[in-house]
Amino acid sequence: MKPDPLPLTELARRIGATPDDPTALEGVFVTGLTTPTLPHAGHVVTIDDAEQLQATLNASNGTELAALVAPPHLEVPQGAPPVLRHDAPRLAFARLTALFDAEARPIPGRAASAIVADDARVAADVTLGPHVVIGSGANVETGCIIDAGCIVGPDVHVGAGTRLFPHVTLYPGVRLGARVRVHAGAVIGADGFGYAAGPDGAEKVHHLGTVVIEDDVEIGANTTIDRGTLGATRIGAGSKIDNLCQIGHNVEVGRHTLIAGTVAIGGTTRIGDGVRIGGGARISDHLTVHDGASLAGGSGLSKDIPAGETWGGLPATPMRQWVRERYLIGNLERIWQFVRTATRNATRSETPDA
Amino acid sequence: MKPDPLPLTELARRIGATPDDPTALEGVFVTGLTTPTLPHAGHVVTIDDAEQLQATLNASNGTELAALVAPPHLEVPQGAPPVLRHDAPRLAFARLTALFDAEARPIPGRAASAIVADDARVAADVTLGPHVVIGSGANVETGCIIDAGCIVGPDVHVGAGTRLFPHVTLYPGVRLGARVRVHAGAVIGADGFGYAAGPDGAEKVHHLGTVVIEDDVEIGANTTIDRGTLGATRIGAGSKIDNLCQIGHNVEVGRHTLIAGTVAIGGTTRIGDGVRIGGGARISDHLTVHDGASLAGGSGLSKDIPAGETWGGLPATPMRQWVRERYLIGNLERIWQFVRTATRNATRSETPDA
Amino acid sequence: MKPDPLPLTELARRIGATPDDPTALEGVFVTGLTTPTLPHAGHVVTIDDAEQLQATLNASNGTELAALVAPPHLEVPQGAPPVLRHDAPRLAFARLTALFDAEARPIPGRAASAIVADDARVAADVTLGPHVVIGSGANVETGCIIDAGCIVGPDVHVGAGTRLFPHVTLYPGVRLGARVRVHAGAVIGADGFGYAAGPDGAEKVHHLGTVVIEDDVEIGANTTIDRGTLGATRIGAGSKIDNLCQIGHNVEVGRHTLIAGTVAIGGTTRIGDGVRIGGGARISDHLTVHDGASLAGGSGLSKDIPAGETWGGLPATPMRQWVRERYLIGNLERIWQFVRTATRNATRSETPDA
Repeated sequence: MKPDPLPLTELARRIGATPDDPTALEGVFVTGLTTPTLPHAGHVVTIDDAEQLQATLNASNGTELAALVAPPHLEVPQGAPPVLRHDAPRLAFARLTALFDAEARPIPGRAASAIVADDARVAADVTLGPHVVIGSGANVETGCIIDAGCIVGPDVHVGAGTRLFPHVTLYPGVRLGARVRVHAGAVIGADGFGYAAGPDGAEKVHHLGTVVIEDDVEIGANTTIDRGTLGATRIGAGSKIDNLCQIGHNVEVGRHTLIAGTVAIGGTTRIGDGVRIGGGARISDHLTVHDGASLAGGSGLSKDIPAGETWGGLPATPMRQWVRERYLIGNLERIWQFVRTATRNATRSETPDA
Repeated sequence: MKPDPLPLTELARRIGATPDDPTALEGVFVTGLTTPTLPHAGHVVTIDDAEQLQATLNASNGTELAALVAPPHLEVPQGAPPVLRHDAPRLAFARLTALFDAEARPIPGRAASAIVADDARVAADVTLGPHVVIGSGANVETGCIIDAGCIVGPDVHVGAGTRLFPHVTLYPGVRLGARVRVHAGAVIGADGFGYAAGPDGAEKVHHLGTVVIEDDVEIGANTTIDRGTLGATRIGAGSKIDNLCQIGHNVEVGRHTLIAGTVAIGGTTRIGDGVRIGGGARISDHLTVHDGASLAGGSGLSKDIPAGETWGGLPATPMRQWVRERYLIGNLERIWQFVRTATRNATRSETPDA
Repeated sequence: MKPDPLPLTELARRIGATPDDPTALEGVFVTGLTTPTLPHAGHVVTIDDAEQLQATLNASNGTELAALVAPPHLEVPQGAPPVLRHDAPRLAFARLTALFDAEARPIPGRAASAIVADDARVAADVTLGPHVVIGSGANVETGCIIDAGCIVGPDVHVGAGTRLFPHVTLYPGVRLGARVRVHAGAVIGADGFGYAAGPDGAEKVHHLGTVVIEDDVEIGANTTIDRGTLGATRIGAGSKIDNLCQIGHNVEVGRHTLIAGTVAIGGTTRIGDGVRIGGGARISDHLTVHDGASLAGGSGLSKDIPAGETWGGLPATPMRQWVRERYLIGNLERIWQFVRTATRNATRSETPDA
């Protein structure tokens, strides 16, 4: 499953990097990507700063690296491997991981144990792993890979080039766009959590809506996204959701938003475009997190966040306020000693105890 | 999968609503339920207040809604659709969602790929989806729907009319009551988390107990409920648990309790009847949350909550105390400036820095 | 599935306990293990203290318990059941649960519906449940039990005596040691959450690494452990992870560490040996929690924890500091009243409102 060696000139072109000395690239083939401290001959290493450069040179003693990818103005000593320059080493790194990805795929074609409803439409080139179930009226477009044990419910739409990893459940009627990746165990389209107080206990609000996942979304393992009550829960194009997140009914997430692991978003909340939500944050229902806002990991949000602001804490406040509050709480000991002394001096009798 | 149109008189009767003008209902058929801002001809809309009424009338310009469901004293202008009155619009709404629910079900009967142990008892009318496994000695009662990929372990009991969505795992011996709904990926009966310090590392406390889920419970997607150590972990009748919740070993949850998404409850804790736990709350082990208590979302509880009280915060305190504490923290800046000034005036030397 | 009755002498030997009176054990057979308040004839009960002893004696009125296991110096009255002494009753209890565990296992052998790749190596005595999938190049060693619906990806290694409960997903190439237990729905080896800002939105950091689970690890239901970016995410021997935990890419967890339910650990963080992490705690990325440290449940950690220290809070601080901070916040009302009074006395004009 190892990818073929790649000419270094070709690699530079594909990641958008510029060589210090184009002639040094000739005849060099790259066999992989590694980290500064684990050199492998023929591999490329991405360097962020002078410290990483030094670590790489120290570690690679005797190992012939194929190339270094470094930011424009970082000085590299004579005798180092060929240097490629890139404005954004992190972006170069992402592109290198794509070049050297040899992701395992199920055996092409349809496994004998896959069960496809007679009236489902599944493009001829779709891969269906063992024990897959495709429901009545479902539509799976060209280039999809549906891994072992996935359940694609009736009337589900799966756009072109989408990949479902094992054990994904798509409830009836949900719609996935193109090039979506859904990791193992994710559940899309379960009922939202809604009940009304009735004379004999809670009466269920049935969920008649659906979920729409737009193009180029990635959804983490065991994440759950509930269907809308009447309309659709929606995840905007290019947004990425990590593992074990809970997205409530009727939530709308905008485009190019990043939601880290174990985040929970309450029903009917709207998350804008380009938002970043840190791991473990909890967002109450019926809120709005406007475009470009950020919420720190572990926070509990119970108010809207204006566009572009960064908030944190429990309950979350603007980050500047949270930092100031933490600073003031750090001074409480001094405040308390002051009050105790002042009180003692004033009364000599009603001293608070410490 | 669309339900048949329903006579409006019949609809009024079934949700327990009273028409302003019974004659206005005659000959009207309802084809669906919609929201105030998305009118569809022939649909019914539930209205909470004057603002929603106005929004509905504005949006429905030209669209002939079948009826409005409104609280008793809300004034509705002439020319509006027929009005049904209900004391509790949220309850009316829940009942309307039930009327218009056309939930997809697996094809009735037993899928050819379902595997049923010879000595399992499965009622004749039970639906078994593809790749279902029913273990030895299991008992699945009348009217159950066991969706694709579910694993019902040996000696499990599943009460009448219960529905398991895809990929549910029931460990050996667990017991589900009647009309229980378990959403996709939920795991009921895994080992509790218990170890004892031994000479060579942790020694496992094996879990010999079980899980009992009483009637009319709903359990969310990818939620986990651990088996008891010696006795049973128990979820009381009518209680509802949202997605991605963790219920520890030996926990007892009472009746008609609501537990929102990503809540974690530590081992041996008791949750009373009619309790409400907000999303993302964490409850330590060996606690008691008494009947009718509430815990705010995102809280971390490490003490018992008395009956009927509402608590919140990290660590959680009575809500009044938490609100007061937040108010006082909001005054810390003023307190700090006071102390700084007083200290500076007093000493002119040991000024705290800001 | 009940285990055979066990001679009490044999039981004493196997849990490492010493009888008060060896002759009292002769001819006694033990049929099970129970709790102080639920006596069963022929069962053994573990007692921690005088209070539990009294409760047991009161409850067992007329029921002939087989034996009591008690700490060395606890005085037991005449007429009680035979007494076994053990220094650590919790450890004795764990060993008793092991003795009486009759855990259900799938039917030995390979289910007809299990699908094994031609070039996978599966030891002859391995149990494969229904609908299991073993991928190309995988290696499953002797004594493993792979329960229904598990997906063992290509090139996965599963060490001897490991047990996978239903619906576990092992992504391609992950490595499990010997005697590992993975509970239902756990996902091991999904992509880490990494993206780089590109000109047209986030560009994915592909994950070329793997996950290594060492010997004697237990992993809870629906827990997710992401693969490394280039290297391995690693869980050290003897460590235990509860349900619904998220372990990020490149994380390294040491040996004999306990991680309670719904914990989230960010990418590249290192957790030492013998660490304890309470339920619902969230740990940011790129941190180190050193050997023997503890983090309280519900905390949010954003700094390293030195070896052996206990931390808690949001953000987490050393526990002593957190407790002191909570004490000082509890005094804020008094501080605030002092400041108000002082301010009022000083100015009689700019009184802050309460």
